[in-house]
Amino acid sequence: MGSLYPHYEEENYSSNTANLLNPEEFRRQGHMIIDFIADYYQNMEKYPVLSQVQPDYLAQLLPKSAPNIPEPIETILHDIQQYIIPGITHWQSPNYFAYFPSSGSIAGFLGEVLSTGFNVVGFNWISSPAATELEFVTMDWLGQMLGLPQSFLFSGTGGVAARDQMLAKVGRENMGKLVIYGSDQTHSKVAGLECKNFRAIKTMRSTAFQLSAESLRTTIRLDVEAGLIPAFLCATIGTTSTTAVDPIRSLSEVTKEYGMWIHVDAAYAGSACICPEYRHFIDGAENVNSFSFNAHKWFFTTLDCCCLWVKDPGALTKSLSASAEFLKNNASDSKQVVDYKDWQITLSRRFRSMKLWLVLRSYGVENLRNFLRSHVKMAKLVVPRNFAMVCFRVLPTTLKKEPNGCKKTVNASGKIFMTHTIVEGIYVIRFAVGATLTEDKHVIKAWKVVQETVGGMLATI
Amino acid sequence: MGSLYPHYEEENYSSNTANLLNPEEFRRQGHMIIDFIADYYQNMEKYPVLSQVQPDYLAQLLPKSAPNIPEPIETILHDIQQYIIPGITHWQSPNYFAYFPSSGSIAGFLGEVLSTGFNVVGFNWISSPAATELEFVTMDWLGQMLGLPQSFLFSGTGGVAARDQMLAKVGRENMGKLVIYGSDQTHSKVAGLECKNFRAIKTMRSTAFQLSAESLRTTIRLDVEAGLIPAFLCATIGTTSTTAVDPIRSLSEVTKEYGMWIHVDAAYAGSACICPEYRHFIDGAENVNSFSFNAHKWFFTTLDCCCLWVKDPGALTKSLSASAEFLKNNASDSKQVVDYKDWQITLSRRFRSMKLWLVLRSYGVENLRNFLRSHVKMAKLVVPRNFAMVCFRVLPTTLKKEPNGCKKTVNASGKIFMTHTIVEGIYVIRFAVGATLTEDKHVIKAWKVVQETVGGMLATI
Repeated sequence: MGSLYPHYEEENYSSNTANLLNPEEFRRQGHMIIDFIADYYQNMEKYPVLSQVQPDYLAQLLPKSAPNIPEPIETILHDIQQYIIPGITHWQSPNYFAYFPSSGSIAGFLGEVLSTGFNVVGFNWISSPAATELEFVTMDWLGQMLGLPQSFLFSGTGGVAARDQMLAKVGRENMGKLVIYGSDQTHSKVAGLECKNFRAIKTMRSTAFQLSAESLRTTIRLDVEAGLIPAFLCATIGTTSTTAVDPIRSLSEVTKEYGMWIHVDAAYAGSACICPEYRHFIDGAENVNSFSFNAHKWFFTTLDCCCLWVKDPGALTKSLSASAEFLKNNASDSKQVVDYKDWQITLSRRFRSMKLWLVLRSYGVENLRNFLRSHVKMAKLVVPRNFAMVCFRVLPTTLKKEPNGCKKTVNASGKIFMTHTIVEGIYVIRFAVGATLTEDKHVIKAWKVVQETVGGMLATI
Repeated sequence: MGSLYPHYEEENYSSNTANLLNPEEFRRQGHMIIDFIADYYQNMEKYPVLSQVQPDYLAQLLPKSAPNIPEPIETILHDIQQYIIPGITHWQSPNYFAYFPSSGSIAGFLGEVLSTGFNVVGFNWISSPAATELEFVTMDWLGQMLGLPQSFLFSGTGGVAARDQMLAKVGRENMGKLVIYGSDQTHSKVAGLECKNFRAIKTMRSTAFQLSAESLRTTIRLDVEAGLIPAFLCATIGTTSTTAVDPIRSLSEVTKEYGMWIHVDAAYAGSACICPEYRHFIDGAENVNSFSFNAHKWFFTTLDCCCLWVKDPGALTKSLSASAEFLKNNASDSKQVVDYKDWQITLSRRFRSMKLWLVLRSYGVENLRNFLRSHVKMAKLVVPRNFAMVCFRVLPTTLKKEPNGCKKTVNASGKIFMTHTIVEGIYVIRFAVGATLTEDKHVIKAWKVVQETVGGMLATI
């Protein structure tokens, strides 16, 4: 071991931290890791896409405490190959069709690696002007690609601002009366407001699980009559269950009437809206208060990268600004710069715009559109779909009361990985195309796996 | 340009996403990025540590919209060198002494790069068992190194749980009555509770800015008499201003009396407590509800990596669990696994334990202790200090009413970067040792820069 770590040769203990970032050692180990990951991508299809390990497998394999002396990178990489990779569910596999994609790319990877190398903490402008300013530039580029109105600039956290804006209007003593709205398809982990004040408004299969303006208005009226205060609506473009699309324009007319904050959560489907033919899904965006989409889902940018545009950043910074003495500096005092610490709950902030900027530059707008189109095209199986996800089910008569039988068998094979949902009491399989490495042939193979599995189930009846 | 991108040669537009993760192209560009970053570390001292750009410099240099066609990585790297690096404040520079360190290392870098390569979204066990289980292992290793009691396991978000636990006891209608406590040195961005219910208890220079149990008790008594409900205390080990240490044991006796949640925020100084000689700073840790420290500050792990131990994870998961149908799976149903989505506000979760695991293995416990000791030793300048930060000031008579004169001049030189604070009305410079590349010679040089600057100020009087 010693020979691999020349500075540990004489004795195993060192106190010279500068060696921890020695450029030549960095280069040597850095190249090793790149080859390791390249090999991982090369061998991807040899691994079962869904990890087949049993709970608690890893604690059995690893030591009970940290080593006292250094271990060489070769040993560590060997362990990762041996012990970690079998416990990975391969989101980058071409056979991954579960949840929503986590579509990586070389450019997204390089961008993340660069920010990791710089390792700056961009909480205010002075702490790395480029980190703040590249975020403006990139968010504006992307905002244009989505056709968002000029009034939308930069990022933050909508919910807290909506709450505080309303509280400023009605008084903090009314906090318990605020109500937030969404459909029963809204995916949200809501903190800070009491859950009994969240209305999950019913949607229906017959209207494609859209939240209708009529239902919203009816629900709000009942609340207002009961002395409550409508504060916030979360409309979704591409729900998690079935990629349903709420009609922003008609919903925003209702929220406007009541002076509510309306947020558009286009986490998954927002990316598709950079294509002119899908832009209509976010018609009415000029009427909303905030709009978000996750570039780490279906936009070739590695986890995590949530893009949020807010019409009135002042509503955010009023709720979230921090002004400890140690943060003060001339640039901030001049009010000529943005300090992103005031746009978020935490203080620390990663240099996330770098990877998004690299994705936009490395691929260009037209290719990005074509990439998304190719996924939508691949998802053209047997039934209608929005975007690149298909929901289908095996007829209940085939299933002998085991609605998840098909999915379970398919996933256990390790050949493909799909997930499910239940809508209107019906169990359906979600098949989400969007992994970067997926090509036509993988979808065709996947469909064959499903057919064969169902065939096998029929044969055993 | 075309020749660099063979698959764009015939026309500039592609729809084959598989090329975005082509292993050979990944290898080529990956090696380029490693060399780019290695060169960056090699040239680090040639750059002014504090970026010298003016507000809005970048928007002037970059195009107003995203390119339509792909740009080669060579062009992009050229632009990063030319336009981005001048806007970076070099947190990895050996001349960086501002805020708290963001101490990177080769192992931390490699770990982050690996998780970026795997790009899994570890919100539940099944989505990548290794991501969940490596987090147990690593947190347990680290917990042992800190001498935390056996009852401390795994991570999450303490504040929300504390609030909800108390609300369950006293009723949600009393939300507005909950009070949280800290000292006037506590660094916190508190959301979800009204700010008028945060008590920043006064501390004093004469008692090294510690929060005393006596002051806490007095403040709580007044609140209880006023009909309010004490809910949460945040004690700090190593405050941001002066690295003051609150006495956990005596404070925890007070919180126990009132059934409050006590959290220990050891964000910066927690790492030092892996050394036996500093462990006494967290004496009494067995009495607290939760304990956190940031491995990305002074523990050679890249941003972000906040480690949180909670005695009763049930208090967390009760507040934060998400149970949409699409998340259900056999492993979760079996209750034999942990789903980290239930420990945090967001659903998505990065594979953060990988980098911490690599740091622990690559350097080993004894070296890590020695690294921290070397920083503490380097900070041994003229005045007493806890840990590796020195606070000092230039005598007011030298400063002609410009208390920030010395810091301003020094930082503008680009030679070193320091920040300041104000305590008891006194402006003091904070000099935080801890950047990985800092060696004795850099501290000696920095001190000389300070002396020369002050000398210059004297001469101009």
